[in-house]
Amino acid sequence: MQVSFTLAEIAAIAKPSRTAGTTTESIRGIASLGSAKPGDISFLGNPKYRSAVASTLASIVLLPPDYAGGPGPNQVHMAVDNPSIALARLCSRIEQSLWPRPAPGIHPTATVAAEASVAESATVGPLCVVEPGAAVGERAHLQAHVFVGRGARVGEDSWLMPGVVVSAECTLGKRVRLHPGVVIGSDGFGYEFVSGRHEKVPQVGAVLIADDVEIGANTTIDRARFGLTVVGEGTKIDNLVQVGHNVVIGRHCLLCAQVGIAGSTTLEDYVVLGGQAGLAGHLTLARGVKVGAQSGVGKDVPAGASVFGSPSLPLIVEQRIAVLRKRLPELFKRVDALEQHLGLKAE
Amino acid sequence: MQVSFTLAEIAAIAKPSRTAGTTTESIRGIASLGSAKPGDISFLGNPKYRSAVASTLASIVLLPPDYAGGPGPNQVHMAVDNPSIALARLCSRIEQSLWPRPAPGIHPTATVAAEASVAESATVGPLCVVEPGAAVGERAHLQAHVFVGRGARVGEDSWLMPGVVVSAECTLGKRVRLHPGVVIGSDGFGYEFVSGRHEKVPQVGAVLIADDVEIGANTTIDRARFGLTVVGEGTKIDNLVQVGHNVVIGRHCLLCAQVGIAGSTTLEDYVVLGGQAGLAGHLTLARGVKVGAQSGVGKDVPAGASVFGSPSLPLIVEQRIAVLRKRLPELFKRVDALEQHLGLKAE
Amino acid sequence: MQVSFTLAEIAAIAKPSRTAGTTTESIRGIASLGSAKPGDISFLGNPKYRSAVASTLASIVLLPPDYAGGPGPNQVHMAVDNPSIALARLCSRIEQSLWPRPAPGIHPTATVAAEASVAESATVGPLCVVEPGAAVGERAHLQAHVFVGRGARVGEDSWLMPGVVVSAECTLGKRVRLHPGVVIGSDGFGYEFVSGRHEKVPQVGAVLIADDVEIGANTTIDRARFGLTVVGEGTKIDNLVQVGHNVVIGRHCLLCAQVGIAGSTTLEDYVVLGGQAGLAGHLTLARGVKVGAQSGVGKDVPAGASVFGSPSLPLIVEQRIAVLRKRLPELFKRVDALEQHLGLKAE
Repeated sequence: MQVSFTLAEIAAIAKPSRTAGTTTESIRGIASLGSAKPGDISFLGNPKYRSAVASTLASIVLLPPDYAGGPGPNQVHMAVDNPSIALARLCSRIEQSLWPRPAPGIHPTATVAAEASVAESATVGPLCVVEPGAAVGERAHLQAHVFVGRGARVGEDSWLMPGVVVSAECTLGKRVRLHPGVVIGSDGFGYEFVSGRHEKVPQVGAVLIADDVEIGANTTIDRARFGLTVVGEGTKIDNLVQVGHNVVIGRHCLLCAQVGIAGSTTLEDYVVLGGQAGLAGHLTLARGVKVGAQSGVGKDVPAGASVFGSPSLPLIVEQRIAVLRKRLPELFKRVDALEQHLGLKAE
Repeated sequence: MQVSFTLAEIAAIAKPSRTAGTTTESIRGIASLGSAKPGDISFLGNPKYRSAVASTLASIVLLPPDYAGGPGPNQVHMAVDNPSIALARLCSRIEQSLWPRPAPGIHPTATVAAEASVAESATVGPLCVVEPGAAVGERAHLQAHVFVGRGARVGEDSWLMPGVVVSAECTLGKRVRLHPGVVIGSDGFGYEFVSGRHEKVPQVGAVLIADDVEIGANTTIDRARFGLTVVGEGTKIDNLVQVGHNVVIGRHCLLCAQVGIAGSTTLEDYVVLGGQAGLAGHLTLARGVKVGAQSGVGKDVPAGASVFGSPSLPLIVEQRIAVLRKRLPELFKRVDALEQHLGLKAE
Repeated sequence: MQVSFTLAEIAAIAKPSRTAGTTTESIRGIASLGSAKPGDISFLGNPKYRSAVASTLASIVLLPPDYAGGPGPNQVHMAVDNPSIALARLCSRIEQSLWPRPAPGIHPTATVAAEASVAESATVGPLCVVEPGAAVGERAHLQAHVFVGRGARVGEDSWLMPGVVVSAECTLGKRVRLHPGVVIGSDGFGYEFVSGRHEKVPQVGAVLIADDVEIGANTTIDRARFGLTVVGEGTKIDNLVQVGHNVVIGRHCLLCAQVGIAGSTTLEDYVVLGGQAGLAGHLTLARGVKVGAQSGVGKDVPAGASVFGSPSLPLIVEQRIAVLRKRLPELFKRVDALEQHLGLKAE
């Protein structure tokens, strides 16, 4: 991937409120403050790295308005409202060269059923399979080795990367982005124990993924027992996440990697789940709930609450207990001393 | 998916011991009590939802024999031994339309080695690969993008969904169901540390999946170092589970999502592992053991025991300790008070 | 898989310092001490199984030099420096028959862009996709259903198993082994919260996998926001592991199954992460750090340290606390008794 920007082009994208210094370099790369070389642009996004600004070799540094220091030799400081967002705008430009818009059409190696509907402007890449009754919307992109099952629907401008599986009757909204290996519509995990064997409970529902959802690599979302498993508009899910059958996830939630959600649990809007967190089934996490990494949630959580730990407790309670837990050796000694003082100790 | 049942058809499937009420609706959908509309059938499977029966809009409700209330207007109550199983029988009918039996034969885009054996009644779907020496049994279904390696065996009536990989020399029994992205026979994770490097220990064993096993999406089961990694008859495994090399899983076990089992551990029959539980290597979990979600098991567990926590303890011990752990702030205050009372507090 | 070795062939491979006993059997299988039958070779690799040597039915047993007992009837004991390594050498021979070297060339069903470069000695198997600008090195093997994206590079002698995805611009070194379903170069999980929505932060970096790295089935490694996510030389990663964007993993690390590493964290050389461990972002785990299974690491860890627990503590501290935690019921009783003794108990 080639990157090449002039100072003027950077300024036009980043729209700095203030600029200091000059550089003779054109910008050929992006790097963190610590690893940047001349010719790179860098930025201060996380205050943790503030002290690294003074020594960075980057030719241009995007900084928050309150940053006090000045640029080094042959270096430009640009003050912007939010350096992360300014850099993201720059990266969007680069992204277009990394992922050029594919030409519309169906690759000759793809297997598209006659009874499927594929929009003229859509791209069905090499070795994809689209089954009868499936519909692929305008400008949708099935990259390669993608499977779209019987009666499934892929909304316009959605992008299904290599190896994605969208099983029968499942629906994707507009601008949905599924990373490689995502499975939408595997069976829910449901059995009845009959005469010493686990008899399968048929899973005849489907999955609905709303608009602007992004789902990370190898994540799995089970179809409902009946009805729908739902992922709400604008929600973002990381890699290797498991979403059980009949789960309903609200709008604009964030699920970090390796989260697991058991069946029939509901997340209202703006819920955030830290990495490797696990949720039992049949719960409700109300609007704006935050769950810490590796937490295990077994009860409903009220709106706006932050919980942590396994089993989870309110965040400040768990933090307090975690501190005291570390002091257990001391506490045992203090109780020993009390007992000795009172002559209560057996030996 | 279209659903349409008359009241008489439902009764023939559910076989109620008692029916009350009438309805003019035909049944066009299945829904939970809370979300059902007229034209839906619903059921009381989990006692937690008992209070929702009185207000449901479902046209037919399947209820346990001891449910006391009567139906609303234009509504039918059917008393059945087990509402979940009655509904499952209904769903089985629907399932047949969702997943129609595929036509036998090898799709022209599949790559099947001349030295492979595929039964006449089997279906090898688009873009599958079957390597030399592999055997695909009667009525087995390789859906699409499935890989069956050199010398592997797929038993009769098994169903391998899109993207499944069955690696060389591995064996699947009858009626095995593998969800999308399952990997059977990846190498076990074994190295010897020699001169500062991890030298690979060759993994030349295989995997044996017995009859009636179902495995969830993107789950991985490693081949043995030598000999076999085994999953016993009737065992059901959820999504994103990791089974290490030389693990032996008994019959009729349940492994919930994201469980991990390290190498050479044995599960006897009827073991149940909660979601995200982890098992160390070289352990034995005896018959009927239950492991709670997110637990970490580092020792053998005797038959019938329930364990919980990380590191895990017997369930009732862990529950007791979890309660006391929450009372640590109180305990520290009480010890402070004792010390003050006795003048033992430094300040 | 057929195995057949004479006693002389075994001796030539295992190079024993001492041999005792004789056998009329030829060796047709490898098995653990407990499950071996006549005709099998077995070994004592883990001292835990020492007592099983006396009763094993194996025809040949590889033993450490300090093993004192003698062979049974029709049985050979071979003393070797490291029985595990001796067995691994034997298994390497078997491996060659399990995974024969594929013939070079591009399978007619593969889709290889004219603008891609594939070495003459490389094998591109059935139904693989190689995009424009990609390069596949000498003797590299893309087995089946493999996707190599625009501008990606696969180093010589690397082996990409079925369903592997190497996304655009990512680079694999020499002798890299990727198990089925591995995804290299999915987008990092980065969003900015703007006006109530999560706006995507473009992920325009790539992934660099160094020489001699092995990565387990369905593991996912995200591309950097910019710059590189790096996996260092000789590092081995197990199944279902998540590596976030901009993570830098040093040389000769071991990551067990289902580990998750959040963005921008650095592992120096020889770090070992136990199964299901989770690491927060922006951390440094210095050289030789060991993290226990299921641990959650939220702070930097100094060189050589062992940590355990969630949140993690130094191993010996956590072990001490874990013991005392189990004694909480006793401690509460002791404090009750103290209070009663002093008449401080309310009731």
